[in-house]
Amino acid sequence: MKKLLLLYLVLIGTFLVYLYTAYIREDEGPIGRDSGLRGEMDQKYVMVNFLTGIDYWKNGLKGFEDAAEALGVSVEYRGATQYDVNEEVTVLEQVIARKPAGIAVSAINPEALNAAINKAVEAGIPVVMFDSDAPDSKAYSFLGTNNYNAGVTAARKMVEFTGTRGKLGVITQPNQLNHQERTKGFQDTLRSEYPNLQLVSVEDGKGDQLVSEQKAAGMIAEYPDLKGIFVTEANGGVGVGNAVLSAGKLDQVRIISFDTDKRTLDMVKSGTIAATLAQGTWNMGYWSLMQLFLLRNELVEPMPNWRESNVPPLPTYVDTGITIVTKSNVDNYYAK
Amino acid sequence: MKKLLLLYLVLIGTFLVYLYTAYIREDEGPIGRDSGLRGEMDQKYVMVNFLTGIDYWKNGLKGFEDAAEALGVSVEYRGATQYDVNEEVTVLEQVIARKPAGIAVSAINPEALNAAINKAVEAGIPVVMFDSDAPDSKAYSFLGTNNYNAGVTAARKMVEFTGTRGKLGVITQPNQLNHQERTKGFQDTLRSEYPNLQLVSVEDGKGDQLVSEQKAAGMIAEYPDLKGIFVTEANGGVGVGNAVLSAGKLDQVRIISFDTDKRTLDMVKSGTIAATLAQGTWNMGYWSLMQLFLLRNELVEPMPNWRESNVPPLPTYVDTGITIVTKSNVDNYYAK
Repeated sequence: MKKLLLLYLVLIGTFLVYLYTAYIREDEGPIGRDSGLRGEMDQKYVMVNFLTGIDYWKNGLKGFEDAAEALGVSVEYRGATQYDVNEEVTVLEQVIARKPAGIAVSAINPEALNAAINKAVEAGIPVVMFDSDAPDSKAYSFLGTNNYNAGVTAARKMVEFTGTRGKLGVITQPNQLNHQERTKGFQDTLRSEYPNLQLVSVEDGKGDQLVSEQKAAGMIAEYPDLKGIFVTEANGGVGVGNAVLSAGKLDQVRIISFDTDKRTLDMVKSGTIAATLAQGTWNMGYWSLMQLFLLRNELVEPMPNWRESNVPPLPTYVDTGITIVTKSNVDNYYAK
Repeated sequence: MKKLLLLYLVLIGTFLVYLYTAYIREDEGPIGRDSGLRGEMDQKYVMVNFLTGIDYWKNGLKGFEDAAEALGVSVEYRGATQYDVNEEVTVLEQVIARKPAGIAVSAINPEALNAAINKAVEAGIPVVMFDSDAPDSKAYSFLGTNNYNAGVTAARKMVEFTGTRGKLGVITQPNQLNHQERTKGFQDTLRSEYPNLQLVSVEDGKGDQLVSEQKAAGMIAEYPDLKGIFVTEANGGVGVGNAVLSAGKLDQVRIISFDTDKRTLDMVKSGTIAATLAQGTWNMGYWSLMQLFLLRNELVEPMPNWRESNVPPLPTYVDTGITIVTKSNVDNYYAK
């Protein structure tokens, strides 16, 4: 009988330990301060963009997914299939109506989405911008390339190919802010650091391969001693590559392009394009999700009453970095 | 006897459930992909700075601690007690020798710590910079105020106090980069947006209250119709406040200062200083720890072979934001 009593006591003790363990785990909660950062799978974070089918977005989505996986939350990928402002507005409004945990938006233009973004923020849905900003909206943060600095980097890299003396050209899209900034960074750096490298021509390639090819051909004809061309977007880069190939001036006219689509990488590999600038797209997605999660779950608190005092709860801008891609590291950039 | 057997079975069953629970928890690991982000308390992250005793650092350290608490890791706070370059180098080297999990450094000057920082990075210890950068070092990121933009904000706020026409002055520290940038942002914004607001005088306050007071008194004497002064650091702000009080021109000369030490807040509360700019110091600490943790534990992977390709594993710059502090929200800024 004494043995039985002891057994009962052990049994009850074990059970209490089990209850205590279970209780403690419950008490820590899914995102308790000491249990680490972890959400729930029914917390859904949505990425919204435009031209949803293009390769450019893939690595950003991968970053968004990687962070969601680490945090135990789920993601969804929505956007305008076309380059269509109204379509992106409609999609964003549909997303907001379903009250997701947070939204990362890449804006097709800097103004059109403001009303929808502000509506989401006012309804308590955290919104951050990635890749293309809507600077006058109430979104909490922008995560993307510092385009001016990318132009600075392009200029300094160009000098390695051309030396510090000679004529250069730029093919860009003068109506888009990010391209203006890339051009300005390039131009300012030549002026201040390499005064004997002369920017003789800046042309509008309209983001189009053929237009850019024609503009480059014209530039090469007008300046037969041209030493290099900086192209601020990828379609144009391929066009300029073709123009230089056609002119038989591959050894004379060095090209620096932008982004890492397959055709650009092929031209880097073959030596037609000397270098291209890869944007930190994975970082854009990863840190967007991280910011949205921490704000959503009230883990960021820069001050006890940050809302009333208009204190930004998140970093207002995150420069996601760029990498110079040349023959030596181009193989790493092909889709794996 | 049957009852005893049943009891044994229940006991064994309960014990197995307990073991299973314990096993599962073990199996998830400290930072397993699905268990959320959690470290170990023996992972120690160190914050290194200078003038360790000043109030300015407190909120940044709070951010560092808050993130560490959320992630279940520990922190340590080290630095030079004086404004002494060699002391900070020595402290940083001592910290590195103990191989911490990661280091967040605020550099007393942009060059002096490079060798130590690079040694740490080469030894596999993640380093990020906060508040004051060492741009030519191998640190992975810089988290701090965009000082040029802070100057832009100061100019636009000044216009609310002075209107778009009249004379303004600046008191700054022309030898320090962050102060040059604040001044330039202010000046460029006046030129481009408010051409009738004239910047008539830029003086060196040497970061000192009395020198700044004298310079402001001189400015007010030379330009009796002066409408406002932007002071780019806190000691100077108090000095300028005293100069304007002495001149009896509180209703005419509006002051915008920088940072939120107690004396500045008191002058904002009393109306001597019209506004001061609060830096996002909590964000600096919080996101420094977050970046160090994620890099340390190999959770960030922008590309499978990012090291060989020189791809930045972390955002290269994080703008931690600023807030305008006026009478209406100054109470929130007193230490709690």
